[in-house]
Amino acid sequence: MPRKKPANEGLRSNARAARRFLRRAIALSVENVRKGRGGPFAALVVKDGRAVGVGTNRVTLTNDPTAHAEIVAIREACRSLGTFELSGCEIYASCEPCPMCLGAIYWARIERVYFATSASDASRAGFDDSMILRQLRLPRSRRRVPMMQMLRREGLRAMRSWREAADKTPY
Amino acid sequence: MPRKKPANEGLRSNARAARRFLRRAIALSVENVRKGRGGPFAALVVKDGRAVGVGTNRVTLTNDPTAHAEIVAIREACRSLGTFELSGCEIYASCEPCPMCLGAIYWARIERVYFATSASDASRAGFDDSMILRQLRLPRSRRRVPMMQMLRREGLRAMRSWREAADKTPY
Repeated sequence: MPRKKPANEGLRSNARAARRFLRRAIALSVENVRKGRGGPFAALVVKDGRAVGVGTNRVTLTNDPTAHAEIVAIREACRSLGTFELSGCEIYASCEPCPMCLGAIYWARIERVYFATSASDASRAGFDDSMILRQLRLPRSRRRVPMMQMLRREGLRAMRSWREAADKTPY
Repeated sequence: MPRKKPANEGLRSNARAARRFLRRAIALSVENVRKGRGGPFAALVVKDGRAVGVGTNRVTLTNDPTAHAEIVAIREACRSLGTFELSGCEIYASCEPCPMCLGAIYWARIERVYFATSASDASRAGFDDSMILRQLRLPRSRRRVPMMQMLRREGLRAMRSWREAADKTPY
């Protein structure tokens, strides 16, 4: 009769796999700086133990302020899986995702986030992560970027069209 | 001697221009639903009274959960201006930007947001905007998507490389 596995064996090997993926993200983040390609950030989207999307920060390289590592990795994972949502996936990010990327993670329905450095480490290195989170936590009227609501009634036409559309794809 | 303009003339014409751009975003958002291309959302990035980026929601059309109208418009504006930041620009969004898009707006340094419908209108139409904002406002440990920090010390290597890099482009 085969020896029974200790009960925490699965957990231990998951932790080992998590460290492996996160180390790969960290290595890519260091390389991204060394090669002068952008900020010190990289991320991997993983499904069933396999990386399905890899991203590094490309903001300045591609003139795209949304090209954070996590966004790039999510877009690549969706392209490679042919889907607009990533349930069953985890993301390994060299640094705690900023509010933009965390929003993307929720929209993509990613189920778990592993990260190495924190938003405050990023802020100490000169990135705006913490400021942006503080801004989002403020009521709209107290944010640094003014937000003006106008023409709400006209805008509601689009919401009505959506509710009434017969062949829509909810997401 | 030419008649002096009333002091609030500039403000009035700005408000007129704002309504015009926002109406165009609303029209595009309605059309996006009618043509079956995606959610009821559109956005314009405007600089010096000219639209430099236009976006509609393309999440399901392009299998990209980050392809919200604002993100698409910001990426297009940056491409057309050849820059990774949009200071001096405004954004006109048919609906209040979700946390992901608001993050992108801050990263892009857009200076003002006009919008028609609100996040709660979007939530009533079935979109997760309000839920995601509530999640971001929670401390990391209480969010629905588990966030695990590991290997911080190894991750800090990337931040150190960034601080020491001589030829980096800050953003």
